[in-house]
Amino acid sequence: MPLSKAKVVDEALRLLDTEGLDQLTMRKLSAALNVQGGALYRHFPNKEALLDAVADKIVEGISEPLPDVPWPEQIRILGSRLRAALLTHRDGARVVAGTFAPGANTVIGSDVSVQVLCRAGLPPAQAGWVTFALFYYVLGHAIEEEAQLRLPPDHDWRTRTDSLDVKVSPQYAAALDSLSTTNPAERFDYGLNVFIEGLLGLQTTQPPQGETAL
Amino acid sequence: MPLSKAKVVDEALRLLDTEGLDQLTMRKLSAALNVQGGALYRHFPNKEALLDAVADKIVEGISEPLPDVPWPEQIRILGSRLRAALLTHRDGARVVAGTFAPGANTVIGSDVSVQVLCRAGLPPAQAGWVTFALFYYVLGHAIEEEAQLRLPPDHDWRTRTDSLDVKVSPQYAAALDSLSTTNPAERFDYGLNVFIEGLLGLQTTQPPQGETAL
Repeated sequence: MPLSKAKVVDEALRLLDTEGLDQLTMRKLSAALNVQGGALYRHFPNKEALLDAVADKIVEGISEPLPDVPWPEQIRILGSRLRAALLTHRDGARVVAGTFAPGANTVIGSDVSVQVLCRAGLPPAQAGWVTFALFYYVLGHAIEEEAQLRLPPDHDWRTRTDSLDVKVSPQYAAALDSLSTTNPAERFDYGLNVFIEGLLGLQTTQPPQGETAL
Repeated sequence: MPLSKAKVVDEALRLLDTEGLDQLTMRKLSAALNVQGGALYRHFPNKEALLDAVADKIVEGISEPLPDVPWPEQIRILGSRLRAALLTHRDGARVVAGTFAPGANTVIGSDVSVQVLCRAGLPPAQAGWVTFALFYYVLGHAIEEEAQLRLPPDHDWRTRTDSLDVKVSPQYAAALDSLSTTNPAERFDYGLNVFIEGLLGLQTTQPPQGETAL
């Protein structure tokens, strides 16, 4: 049976989960698939193209249709789906952050977000900017979560600052401590909520102006 | 004169600006400084440690004291300072995104943000989470801006989706078009404003509860 593109991507995801992004090479992937290197390059001209395809497979879940609920809840669902998708695979957020050419799932998911925000009253351009902003937030949060997962269990966040010759405020120290004592999902939801509150705030503080309202 | 740590960082920044992150190697840096490789490693055990120091130098500007203005304006200033700092150097945002151990300027800047948000009424933990969220937004936006700067002048955003077998909505197409026709600073300010509106929204929708208000 000839080697399919989908099979290469699936095996790359499996290697990603077991070895991590820094160890994922075209050479190891060929060996795992038991093919010559050339067979991979017939599907992907280089590692970047392969990683673009892997990234788009990772975010597959964001392209699913949304339930018919108010738009703030739809945005919450989209953000949470993206976070869940990124955290399903080791280094998932780093892989997606490193891609430039968006794949089909990325485009469909972004398009869904833009349409939700347009229905909320944003002009298309601003709906796009907010979609990107949301994407940056989820990606940044997931990258930090991944990094935190790889810390030794006895890691103390204070050691991140103690080695520096900087005196931090009690508030900042408490903020760092909260990283060990709170659930990442709770922190994520809080930030997402600030975002949604902001969109609601723009809706109420600016008078409706037909197509360009919000 | 012995090679100082500061001189290594300055030369690394100069190399970054002329060659870009992917071409910045310890070997090229030694050659540019006209020293043996060992001289670098006396200051920095590895390239990661060097890049951490370079990243902290890039964000130097965020550690400056803030003017005495209302907190939403202070948050706006902090966000804009960070964006400006990241865009001052080629691949600046990518360098900062890739670091894990925060340096003195990063800690001071984050601490300033946490304190501003605590004065706005957030508990310290939440002030920290919002600071991180803001950081992810600015970083993600700056990485996209950098990527856009390197696109050929005749680049058409639609070609990013035309090669995919996906039919996009007119709204999404308009959102993509806006990337070529609008100022990145305008887009950045819009997203930052959504964020600040969200913080104001939390302030007004939740009754004050002393120390834990917002």
